[in-house]
Amino acid sequence: MAAAMQRVLALSGGVGGAKLALGLTHESSAGALHVLVNCADDFEHLGLHISPDIDTLLYTLAGLSDPQQGWGVGGETFNALEALGRLGGETWFRLGDKDLATHLWRSVELGRGQTLSQVTAELAARLGITAHIHPMSDDPVRTRVHSSLGELPFQHYFVREACSPQVTGFDFDGIEAASANHEVMAMLAADAFSVIVICPSNPFVSIDPILQLPGMWQALASCSAPVVLVSPIVGGIAIKGPAAKMMSELGMPVTAQGVAGHYQRHYPGLVDHFVIDTSDGTLAADIERLELDVGVTATVMTTLQDKRRLARYVLDLVNS
Amino acid sequence: MAAAMQRVLALSGGVGGAKLALGLTHESSAGALHVLVNCADDFEHLGLHISPDIDTLLYTLAGLSDPQQGWGVGGETFNALEALGRLGGETWFRLGDKDLATHLWRSVELGRGQTLSQVTAELAARLGITAHIHPMSDDPVRTRVHSSLGELPFQHYFVREACSPQVTGFDFDGIEAASANHEVMAMLAADAFSVIVICPSNPFVSIDPILQLPGMWQALASCSAPVVLVSPIVGGIAIKGPAAKMMSELGMPVTAQGVAGHYQRHYPGLVDHFVIDTSDGTLAADIERLELDVGVTATVMTTLQDKRRLARYVLDLVNS
Repeated sequence: MAAAMQRVLALSGGVGGAKLALGLTHESSAGALHVLVNCADDFEHLGLHISPDIDTLLYTLAGLSDPQQGWGVGGETFNALEALGRLGGETWFRLGDKDLATHLWRSVELGRGQTLSQVTAELAARLGITAHIHPMSDDPVRTRVHSSLGELPFQHYFVREACSPQVTGFDFDGIEAASANHEVMAMLAADAFSVIVICPSNPFVSIDPILQLPGMWQALASCSAPVVLVSPIVGGIAIKGPAAKMMSELGMPVTAQGVAGHYQRHYPGLVDHFVIDTSDGTLAADIERLELDVGVTATVMTTLQDKRRLARYVLDLVNS
Repeated sequence: MAAAMQRVLALSGGVGGAKLALGLTHESSAGALHVLVNCADDFEHLGLHISPDIDTLLYTLAGLSDPQQGWGVGGETFNALEALGRLGGETWFRLGDKDLATHLWRSVELGRGQTLSQVTAELAARLGITAHIHPMSDDPVRTRVHSSLGELPFQHYFVREACSPQVTGFDFDGIEAASANHEVMAMLAADAFSVIVICPSNPFVSIDPILQLPGMWQALASCSAPVVLVSPIVGGIAIKGPAAKMMSELGMPVTAQGVAGHYQRHYPGLVDHFVIDTSDGTLAADIERLELDVGVTATVMTTLQDKRRLARYVLDLVNS
């Protein structure tokens, strides 16, 4: 009798999470990886529904992503955006021509009454992706950044203002009324996963919106699968994005320990294993005092080999 | 005291009409040309509002059009469309990347509650066009082609089926409830034009929808400006598009005379002067029996010089 499929659930934001998801898809059997993706960055722009984190997952897992920047499509052109600029249209959000096709396709399908889950599953299938990519919710949840410039919609903070305003907090508009992804919730209730991985994504704007969906973190904490968190902070910096800057502005220590503290404070007992980078090895003892099992390994993912090695490490940590 | 501005009103469809409109804008003073454009070809596609004839006018008058095909933007790329094709999306309507910007911009502005007239005027201004481009109506009017394949929306007949079905007739869905362009109707009521030119556009699917708007052809016929019709049929063929094929399928003689008969039958007394090509000069006497003043000149417009020469001829015909 064949062993039951070792199903993996990964929680992910954009670039950093997609890297580990790519490693996990290579290190698990076909169809075994489920990725639950942040959609609180989604926004309506030029009449299109744009899902930046889902698209980063799609392009990364389909082998289409731009290898330099980690988001967008490789070999992209910007002819539509340049023409729009000549008309005086909005060009602060860098929509490539190939990327536009995804937004057009998604917007048409949503307009036909498909859910974001259905549209995402169909896109993944059409791009030949075997992993299951689940939006965190089919309902609109939108991150608002409380900042020195006032309250900003996430993409205005992130792209238009290039993360320069100082942040004081976040909220997720619509989250109380939103239903967490039905398929993932049903699988959690059925104890269908062998391991749950929180990818090295931004705790505040990528993972918090997922965990704070009604019932979500409690469902993750109460299923029997161990939860492994991979630190997005390495040697006091974020490999990608504004996580370190945000921690500093929020008065938190900009360390893996600061990350661990955030999760233990807001989601007590959720995380079982915390994976930190070798360069932060001296913090292990202090972090273990937060009642977390700490794993120390190389977490910076540059090559596909790095991604697969970290994925293998995470999966073995749980099996050992 | 300066002479009053000689205002010109041109009725136009796409490519053929835009050629003469370009000539007319060169041969009249800045701001003197008003073009009333067919919008019964407009359609919603991929969630975008597409106005093919307006766009051909915009691109032609802005000097952006593709010089080979006469529609679309020169130096166009199709990266969005190719990516959409890889997703299994609809690609039969050849949307270029630069062209997409126009549709995105228009769709956003219409979504904000602007009228098609306002959006078109703004687009023309942003493209540096001094002529006034007026959509025939702000209300939706949609050509349906009655054909051997049944009733087809215009773009399905024209682009997807490449005009191959045999036509038996046309109707213009929504036309009874549509209001003709308010600004043009007000100018006609104020007798503001010195001349009205019906460009060498398709009589059935470009000019008929304009003329059949409630009150439109009567307003054109009753103002004091002479109406000049330029034949779209030269030597038994249409220079561009399916006009000749349609005439043949409808059982009409495929000649300039057939065109004249169509206008005299449906809009008696509307046309004062009928301009035919030199190659059709032998038809002049027969056409004059339809109580039309016939002008004979070279009407095929290849170069800018051809366009200006024909425009000059039309304007002089009226002044003489």
